[in-house]
Amino acid sequence: MIGYAFMGKAHSHAWRNVGSYFDVPAFEQKVLVGRNSAGAAAAAAKYGWADSSTDWRSVIRREDIDIVDICAPGFLHAEIAVAALAAGKHVLVEKPLANTLAEAESMAAAAREARAGGVQSMVGFNYRRVPALALARELIAEGRIGTVRHVRAAYLQDWLADPESPMSWRLKRETAGSGALGDIASHAIDQVLFLLRDHVTEVSGRTHTFTTHRPGTQGLEEVTVDDAAWATLTLASGAVASVEVSRVATGQKNSLKLEIYGDKGSLVFDLEDLNELRFLDATVPVREQGFRRILVNEPEHPYIDAWWPQGHILGWEHTFTHEIRDFLTAINSGAEPSPSFDDGLAVQRILAAVEESAAAKGALIQLASPVKSPAKSPVTEGA
Amino acid sequence: MIGYAFMGKAHSHAWRNVGSYFDVPAFEQKVLVGRNSAGAAAAAAKYGWADSSTDWRSVIRREDIDIVDICAPGFLHAEIAVAALAAGKHVLVEKPLANTLAEAESMAAAAREARAGGVQSMVGFNYRRVPALALARELIAEGRIGTVRHVRAAYLQDWLADPESPMSWRLKRETAGSGALGDIASHAIDQVLFLLRDHVTEVSGRTHTFTTHRPGTQGLEEVTVDDAAWATLTLASGAVASVEVSRVATGQKNSLKLEIYGDKGSLVFDLEDLNELRFLDATVPVREQGFRRILVNEPEHPYIDAWWPQGHILGWEHTFTHEIRDFLTAINSGAEPSPSFDDGLAVQRILAAVEESAAAKGALIQLASPVKSPAKSPVTEGA
Amino acid sequence: MIGYAFMGKAHSHAWRNVGSYFDVPAFEQKVLVGRNSAGAAAAAAKYGWADSSTDWRSVIRREDIDIVDICAPGFLHAEIAVAALAAGKHVLVEKPLANTLAEAESMAAAAREARAGGVQSMVGFNYRRVPALALARELIAEGRIGTVRHVRAAYLQDWLADPESPMSWRLKRETAGSGALGDIASHAIDQVLFLLRDHVTEVSGRTHTFTTHRPGTQGLEEVTVDDAAWATLTLASGAVASVEVSRVATGQKNSLKLEIYGDKGSLVFDLEDLNELRFLDATVPVREQGFRRILVNEPEHPYIDAWWPQGHILGWEHTFTHEIRDFLTAINSGAEPSPSFDDGLAVQRILAAVEESAAAKGALIQLASPVKSPAKSPVTEGA
Amino acid sequence: MIGYAFMGKAHSHAWRNVGSYFDVPAFEQKVLVGRNSAGAAAAAAKYGWADSSTDWRSVIRREDIDIVDICAPGFLHAEIAVAALAAGKHVLVEKPLANTLAEAESMAAAAREARAGGVQSMVGFNYRRVPALALARELIAEGRIGTVRHVRAAYLQDWLADPESPMSWRLKRETAGSGALGDIASHAIDQVLFLLRDHVTEVSGRTHTFTTHRPGTQGLEEVTVDDAAWATLTLASGAVASVEVSRVATGQKNSLKLEIYGDKGSLVFDLEDLNELRFLDATVPVREQGFRRILVNEPEHPYIDAWWPQGHILGWEHTFTHEIRDFLTAINSGAEPSPSFDDGLAVQRILAAVEESAAAKGALIQLASPVKSPAKSPVTEGA
Repeated sequence: MIGYAFMGKAHSHAWRNVGSYFDVPAFEQKVLVGRNSAGAAAAAAKYGWADSSTDWRSVIRREDIDIVDICAPGFLHAEIAVAALAAGKHVLVEKPLANTLAEAESMAAAAREARAGGVQSMVGFNYRRVPALALARELIAEGRIGTVRHVRAAYLQDWLADPESPMSWRLKRETAGSGALGDIASHAIDQVLFLLRDHVTEVSGRTHTFTTHRPGTQGLEEVTVDDAAWATLTLASGAVASVEVSRVATGQKNSLKLEIYGDKGSLVFDLEDLNELRFLDATVPVREQGFRRILVNEPEHPYIDAWWPQGHILGWEHTFTHEIRDFLTAINSGAEPSPSFDDGLAVQRILAAVEESAAAKGALIQLASPVKSPAKSPVTEGA
Repeated sequence: MIGYAFMGKAHSHAWRNVGSYFDVPAFEQKVLVGRNSAGAAAAAAKYGWADSSTDWRSVIRREDIDIVDICAPGFLHAEIAVAALAAGKHVLVEKPLANTLAEAESMAAAAREARAGGVQSMVGFNYRRVPALALARELIAEGRIGTVRHVRAAYLQDWLADPESPMSWRLKRETAGSGALGDIASHAIDQVLFLLRDHVTEVSGRTHTFTTHRPGTQGLEEVTVDDAAWATLTLASGAVASVEVSRVATGQKNSLKLEIYGDKGSLVFDLEDLNELRFLDATVPVREQGFRRILVNEPEHPYIDAWWPQGHILGWEHTFTHEIRDFLTAINSGAEPSPSFDDGLAVQRILAAVEESAAAKGALIQLASPVKSPAKSPVTEGA
Repeated sequence: MIGYAFMGKAHSHAWRNVGSYFDVPAFEQKVLVGRNSAGAAAAAAKYGWADSSTDWRSVIRREDIDIVDICAPGFLHAEIAVAALAAGKHVLVEKPLANTLAEAESMAAAAREARAGGVQSMVGFNYRRVPALALARELIAEGRIGTVRHVRAAYLQDWLADPESPMSWRLKRETAGSGALGDIASHAIDQVLFLLRDHVTEVSGRTHTFTTHRPGTQGLEEVTVDDAAWATLTLASGAVASVEVSRVATGQKNSLKLEIYGDKGSLVFDLEDLNELRFLDATVPVREQGFRRILVNEPEHPYIDAWWPQGHILGWEHTFTHEIRDFLTAINSGAEPSPSFDDGLAVQRILAAVEESAAAKGALIQLASPVKSPAKSPVTEGA
Repeated sequence: MIGYAFMGKAHSHAWRNVGSYFDVPAFEQKVLVGRNSAGAAAAAAKYGWADSSTDWRSVIRREDIDIVDICAPGFLHAEIAVAALAAGKHVLVEKPLANTLAEAESMAAAAREARAGGVQSMVGFNYRRVPALALARELIAEGRIGTVRHVRAAYLQDWLADPESPMSWRLKRETAGSGALGDIASHAIDQVLFLLRDHVTEVSGRTHTFTTHRPGTQGLEEVTVDDAAWATLTLASGAVASVEVSRVATGQKNSLKLEIYGDKGSLVFDLEDLNELRFLDATVPVREQGFRRILVNEPEHPYIDAWWPQGHILGWEHTFTHEIRDFLTAINSGAEPSPSFDDGLAVQRILAAVEESAAAKGALIQLASPVKSPAKSPVTEGA
């Protein structure tokens, strides 16, 4: 594993625990790679890795390494992933796939080539492994909400609500690529694609930076990424999705909100209540219709039979446990893990189109059909 | 109508508006009676009554009066009601039926006798006319939640939470009869009887006064009624109901909470969300079970087709509009209005048993079978 | 009053009841006007009007008429309102002000001229009189949420979710003007202006018709209005508002959702819970921050001291009671009622810009400054 | 660790992960003990234990063992715990402390004696380590809700709602001790003591078995434990707590509900939303009072700074991680871990009094003062 900050800590949790809950192939947590030698060594000890290193290049060449899990910052994704795939290692890379569309395209191409040789890859949109969202996808596929007309997707946070909170690398375009768009709109958009098994044909968007300057080490510095963004997406099916993301939505801590409206029913989800799914079945008599709060904690629900009895709620970190489980299972069976780098690329293209539309004052941007449909996921998650 | 304080204002609203929504027999708001001549006259003008009076005795003898609506304080209920029934007037009396069991019994006897002569009577448990609770009763009767095992009933308010709030007649046993028990436990207990169409065979109870002295006109005075009470009730069916009421539940403004657990489903209600009923149907597959929030605002719901399109919520005051509608409809058809004085008496007996048990340190009190079963309500409310 | 359908019934409720709760100048419900003589007569009797008529022109000339309340369909608003103002009658007109921008402009001009002569006018955006929204406006004005960054406004209904529900005049452009846009986006946009006391400078929008043909009397007919719309609005202050409306949001019955995010706090509202306002105060210590559910039912809240004790919730129809109260109070004091026809016109201009942008594939439309700032409302609602 | 069923799995999770989040003394997961040799070996491998055994007696004598974690069934607690303490091992035992009061008393006596020799012990009421409940306790101690008047505690589950669900050892008095009472009322009662730092002086109770016979291996067998129970508790402070527990509350999966009403505020909690605490501060102006939903996920909250950024919710299993952390920290510092066996004994005495009262038809049972006040916890949890 490369990287041991927030995502490295979360992925380590998953690697350390997946085997205690799921029947997965045997593996060892071999080596943790970081830029700082002492830091990497301490993190390796703390998070359950046998060894540590500061040289990812030598690690990915090691014979005893089969899998590379990339939790490094986004600008390093492409170089490491392409090299690791070339070295014949299966690769898991955190989302978003890359900071630029060009990088994402090179990664997707490398992944396609590697796959032909039996080397697997996956992008870490962990919210696909929230049991409630996996259930939502199943219900949609089963036709339980009928034809989807529109989706309201929002990802709201507030960690930049204070205009005095300081400048950081995340607020500069050269290091972060974009702001709320790449960081959290990527999740929201991936969910639209995941839940509807569809692709986007048209995009209109807008971005905004409410706090344009923040205190840096040399006085006020310019913020060069968005802190909020809005978009509408047309899907191939004709459905329309609105997407709204913000890092200044005071009081919203980590609220990925999804509302999916079909002609036979609806689904509503909020990541702050990640064990719950609201489902309205419009085919029951009107007299007894209403949004049901399903506590997605029953053995009948995706991933849950591995855990606790009903009503003992799961934490956010286990979305990664499920991700690793599905990744290992796919590798073992030779199936293509999902979401693929192509799925990650599809999200990047939509993000790029939002920025293009925003630069063109909201003009509608057409998107070409995806290289391959993300709808045909060979691995059924949580099965 | 006799009385023009809180309840008089609410009943007036109902009389003034019922004909604009429901097909009811024609009637006129003839005369409003109050102790204070000027006050009654002003209230009559404000609330839509043609005339006012300070003498209820002469009013109930008037030939042009057919119905007497008693909103006077509880200690006057028995005298007025018995006299009005004797004068051949149909009588609606606010809950609780009376301040003492003896008075309640005399009223119920008078009502039975009057009914034989075609003179009708009704006690104003207005929450039977909350559409969501009327729907709950229907669902239970249809077997949608199966056999009811237990009920959690609570009525929580906080208007006495401040220990400095002053002494009043409501806090003295001689004027108020009891505290939270008679005032709000009466509603909670009536709902248990109404929803389950059952009667109580055993009672265990406890009462408490948290603030024993309050500032009065002559310094600190003793509070001689309860400000909270707890009881468990055994029903003839074997179901058990817990009842908890409080006037010091800080932050709970007017929260009548009902939870009914059956072997095939459950229902949950809170008066602070009076347009909503939560319903869990345990006969659907576990994977999609959950409490549904039914917005009880559809034409298919009790009373609603008279009002607005879906989603336009009704206020608390219309529980009285529905009550008057049902009362007028019953009178017109010759049917027995529900809840009857016997129903009111059944509640009084349970309240008395709670006090008796509390005085006996929680000992279980047996109740005799009701004079007649409250289960056979000849009028289906809201039909 | 002209018109006795849904809005006529609701306005009648307000006229019939306002005097029972509020100190308003004396008035009489003189005459109800409708196209059908028998229907108007029956409605007049039912809703408390002394007389009825089929000829609005003669009615507005009557000496004993001082106020005209226009609940007729939108395409009649302009003609009636301009004539009534010219006849020296105070005019209340239901929202939206008119079906076309040209009509709205003529009405606003007439209203300005009439006002100079002491004749008042008002447009019926009744949700300004929801106590929770009036409280929200006060809190924003007091700086309790600081500088507003962005607003999420949505109005979701589902009465067209069923693709088989039939064609009606509301689904034809020539009769309805627009679809969800004029009908419900008008409310959402008015709230943005009302709450923020600001005006819109830039608009980008999109509209969509999910069900393009519906069964009519002669087979399938084309739906020529939108059933959903999306927009982003830039406000003069720099705030951005997203607006999303739909009539096919299955399970959402009448859900006007408003979320206002400032740098010191936030407010959240849903019309389906119209007695509640959620308020997050970001100036209290983080450890105890959270959205508070304020039950807007206390004497300290706008309009409430006229009603019931705390916790006895108000219904939707009383937004009109408050509206009539404020209208009468303004007329009596000579103050300008709010919202004015200019306020109604401001909303129409934004709606027109949404359609213009939608036709131009999302291009940003600039709006001129309003004739006068809607921010300076001379009447403080609910005071 | 002894036992590897539900609780063994959960405790293992905690031991395996605590060091990755908290600074705790170094330790090793040495040996897992179970009755079945193959089962214990497989569980040891899966859950991270170096070795396994079927002989707890030999294991607790091993020199390299310092801590014994008892997850065996309740009837084994006393024997193992007393032996382990005698062998000088620190002991953690799952709740409830024991199946009988006599056993609990012997354990508490052994723990007191061992403590004098520096050997520590703790009972595993893990819900004391829910961050939201630890925060609730802090707020109460700081006087934020003033003097507590009453508490509503309920623990509702539904896994026995189906009358056809089969007989098991949990439904027999000889193996299970009691039903819902020992299993879940113990948690609810411990929370009352924990949150209020108080002790109980008087108990009145009732128990019931709704389904008296269930299908067993030889036909219908008698259920000899309760499946629901009700109690009221008087606390030394004068506060009154109601407790209601059920295993047949259809639709309630694992709902420990706590409502604490003080004269200056209130707190509400539900285990099904374990990352949330509702707090009403009655000292702010009435106009802005309301229950705040605090997402207890901020670095300022108990235990949270070890985990993820705000809004990334924690799962149920981490209540054990926190428990192990506090246990290890106390051992290391020589402080007395909390809750002690005396705290566990206090709960047992209350449970016994509920049964005694139930047998005496609800009569009030007086409780002696506790051996030592549970209020003086030397370790502040989550500090």
